[in-house]
Amino acid sequence: MPYINTRTNIEISKEKEELLKQEIGKAIELIPGKSEDWLMVSFEDQASLYFRGKTDKPIAFVEVKLFGASTKEAYQKLTAELTSIIANELDIAPNQIYVRYEETKYWGYNGNNF
Amino acid sequence: MPYINTRTNIEISKEKEELLKQEIGKAIELIPGKSEDWLMVSFEDQASLYFRGKTDKPIAFVEVKLFGASTKEAYQKLTAELTSIIANELDIAPNQIYVRYEETKYWGYNGNNF
Amino acid sequence: MPYINTRTNIEISKEKEELLKQEIGKAIELIPGKSEDWLMVSFEDQASLYFRGKTDKPIAFVEVKLFGASTKEAYQKLTAELTSIIANELDIAPNQIYVRYEETKYWGYNGNNF
Repeated sequence: MPYINTRTNIEISKEKEELLKQEIGKAIELIPGKSEDWLMVSFEDQASLYFRGKTDKPIAFVEVKLFGASTKEAYQKLTAELTSIIANELDIAPNQIYVRYEETKYWGYNGNNF
Repeated sequence: MPYINTRTNIEISKEKEELLKQEIGKAIELIPGKSEDWLMVSFEDQASLYFRGKTDKPIAFVEVKLFGASTKEAYQKLTAELTSIIANELDIAPNQIYVRYEETKYWGYNGNNF
Repeated sequence: MPYINTRTNIEISKEKEELLKQEIGKAIELIPGKSEDWLMVSFEDQASLYFRGKTDKPIAFVEVKLFGASTKEAYQKLTAELTSIIANELDIAPNQIYVRYEETKYWGYNGNNF
């Protein structure tokens, strides 16, 4: 039950989106017990987004929302991997990328909460 | 002070949006003390959204954000109802719908925090 | 490491967006230890957004996401200031504006979590 959204000020082509989706679907396995089988992935490109008051360089804001909680170590590995994926595929400098985590107590699927 | 956002990969017509908004405005009463009088509702259609690595079927990701906290039972009822509304109005299979909850400690309205 | 997003049902011109970004970049200093140097700011205009079942008036939903936690007093000051900025620049009535806070335990930057 994870959900990963990437918001960026640049354009993401359909080809790149497909690649990102695949790589993020593998990266989620860094969180024990999680896999692409339960993952939703979302992208918002060409967003109005500023970092340090500027929007002249590519920026990405990534949010990882998951049911329950995992470990500090797992989150660290996922941050490294997601940052690497986005830096490589979208040519966004790692120091222009935030990755934010939200642990979630109540999460519904198929009409029922887990 | 609740806020409910629905993100989907399909299109939502203005007529359907109006219906969804009305039905969600009633559903929120399943949370004790909440009503449409304090509810914000938002929709994001035609989003880039993948579930289990695919986007070929309709998908919905619903987020319910509320001030304070409610009960497990109330959240369960609301998940059942929101899933039913979205499944019926948008023809999205319940097993393609997530409903996620966020309880909120600090929430401002009219320039002041509650 | 704060992130502030403003979603509204009205249009935000590029000139207004620039002003809002600047003023929000100053307002964040009301949270001790935070400044525009670490702030991401985002805007979503012309969104499908309803308050009390209606979308005939301007509405804004502002989310402040920050690493760690701050004080009740700081959040109150920021709510007053953000509401004032949005009311003044976008002509949105303060009683049509929500400001919601999310404290965050895990936040990555430049490939590493803080």
